[in-house]
Amino acid sequence: MLRPGAERVARLGGLHEFARWPHTILTDSGGFQVMSLAQIRKLTETGVTFRSHIDGSRHEMTPERSVEIQGLLGSDIQMQLDECIRLPAERKEIDRAMQLSLRWAARSRAKFEAMGGPGKGQGLYGIVQGGDDAELRATSARELAAMPFEGFSIGGLAVGEPQAVMLQMLDIVCPLLPQDRPRYLMGVGTPDDIVESVARGVDQFDCVMPTRAGRHGQVFTRFGRINLRNARHAEDPRPLDEASDCPAARDYSRAYLHHLVRAEEALGAMLLTWVNVAYYQSLMQGIRDAIEAGRYADFVAETKAGWARGDIAAV
Amino acid sequence: MLRPGAERVARLGGLHEFARWPHTILTDSGGFQVMSLAQIRKLTETGVTFRSHIDGSRHEMTPERSVEIQGLLGSDIQMQLDECIRLPAERKEIDRAMQLSLRWAARSRAKFEAMGGPGKGQGLYGIVQGGDDAELRATSARELAAMPFEGFSIGGLAVGEPQAVMLQMLDIVCPLLPQDRPRYLMGVGTPDDIVESVARGVDQFDCVMPTRAGRHGQVFTRFGRINLRNARHAEDPRPLDEASDCPAARDYSRAYLHHLVRAEEALGAMLLTWVNVAYYQSLMQGIRDAIEAGRYADFVAETKAGWARGDIAAV
Repeated sequence: MLRPGAERVARLGGLHEFARWPHTILTDSGGFQVMSLAQIRKLTETGVTFRSHIDGSRHEMTPERSVEIQGLLGSDIQMQLDECIRLPAERKEIDRAMQLSLRWAARSRAKFEAMGGPGKGQGLYGIVQGGDDAELRATSARELAAMPFEGFSIGGLAVGEPQAVMLQMLDIVCPLLPQDRPRYLMGVGTPDDIVESVARGVDQFDCVMPTRAGRHGQVFTRFGRINLRNARHAEDPRPLDEASDCPAARDYSRAYLHHLVRAEEALGAMLLTWVNVAYYQSLMQGIRDAIEAGRYADFVAETKAGWARGDIAAV
Repeated sequence: MLRPGAERVARLGGLHEFARWPHTILTDSGGFQVMSLAQIRKLTETGVTFRSHIDGSRHEMTPERSVEIQGLLGSDIQMQLDECIRLPAERKEIDRAMQLSLRWAARSRAKFEAMGGPGKGQGLYGIVQGGDDAELRATSARELAAMPFEGFSIGGLAVGEPQAVMLQMLDIVCPLLPQDRPRYLMGVGTPDDIVESVARGVDQFDCVMPTRAGRHGQVFTRFGRINLRNARHAEDPRPLDEASDCPAARDYSRAYLHHLVRAEEALGAMLLTWVNVAYYQSLMQGIRDAIEAGRYADFVAETKAGWARGDIAAV
């Protein structure tokens, strides 16, 4: 929206053409920024007004404009504008934000339909809010489920609450959402968050975790989390995982990766990001295979046993 | 030497194994740091003492230790320790540093022979010094050429003097070096520096130019230098060079590359570095082909005509 601008991206053929990415693209609506940029925005029934972090200019975001922008970008999976709030919060405040998000859901859907509705493989998702309040979550899920969205997002979680609270909310929300539409848990999470959420009926995730952790020297493996900054790796000739399909995990020594991280070489961030994205992809593939084979509980037990084994030191 | 340490790299199998790089590796001796770290080092006949930029600890570098370190690293092409000085400089100072470098050349060679001499495809280069003084350059080249080095470096150029002075020094030095040994111009340079130096008999180069320029939004192409930060690229859908073999130059729009550079996305640095390394490689391939075909002068004229054409704006 701000850089390089939705109209500019549209003139350049949309995001797929612009970034040369032929696969699925999901765009968020700006709802997360309503929370994260709380210091520089003003919220009304109409929408949210905020100052650009680039040049300080004033911009208005409404449910309609958000749908319009996502249409200009040409993303496949689009989000309604919602109000995401940080936890813990007062029940009254959670309720207010959830009710506003429902009204914005209806306005978003109307705009989406007015613009032509779902394309081939494209669609707009409604977003469940309600904080950590079981009743408010249920209300939000029921009301949204009655609207004709192509999928349903679960927002406002992983924003400061314990994992147990997040899973409890999923236990309430997932059974209330349509069986035949994808359920997407926004901004989650660790591998453990993912396997637990899938067990409760979540289909889809997005998270900076694998890339951000990689940039900071942390990797996720079959044997749990490893911090490559740790001095114990300095002379360890073993790869992170000799059985991995990912060259960065299989072919480079921990000693070399440790050196790259300590020396702040860009190659360190690149290789460790590769390790993490490959691990997350293999985890999701394992999840799909296990569900299809009807052995998801066994898969979770085996996967957790691997993480619990931990990273064994070189002999 | 300092991070992660030569002995540590040796224990991990040497640089080729450590970095998983099966191709040729060239290491410098520390001579450039004698100049660039002038504020934190002390020079004597024996060698140079300096403080670590990492932890402030004191280290001594001698011609012998430099050869030893490069042996531990296991590089293929190794450099003698020399004293590289910044230009302009007094003739007396240039002479002193050049004479010291010659004595260090002899000590480096003796140590290299004592350690077993050249391996299969490995060798030690002597380094010609002498600043911008024709007579001192000639003395340095003649004295070094009498020593049994596997190749000859030309150091102390591209350190602040005009290109014409550098080329004048090459005109003096190259004819004095053995015909059957590679000549390596250290720390050079732009594509134009390279074609002009090859015309004078240089075989080999090293430079941060393609990677550093890429990180800063600058690319080298058949049609000269392009600064992707420039606002004129913001809506230009054309690739940098539709005829390039490099996907980064051929498949992405200038508009997208411009956006990545402006937004300081790591992908911008990665793609533009790729563009530059690919261009330098294609330039060197073109140089080798033209020499073999006996048409180097024509190649230079054609190549310069392309650069002079410049980057033509989109219509």
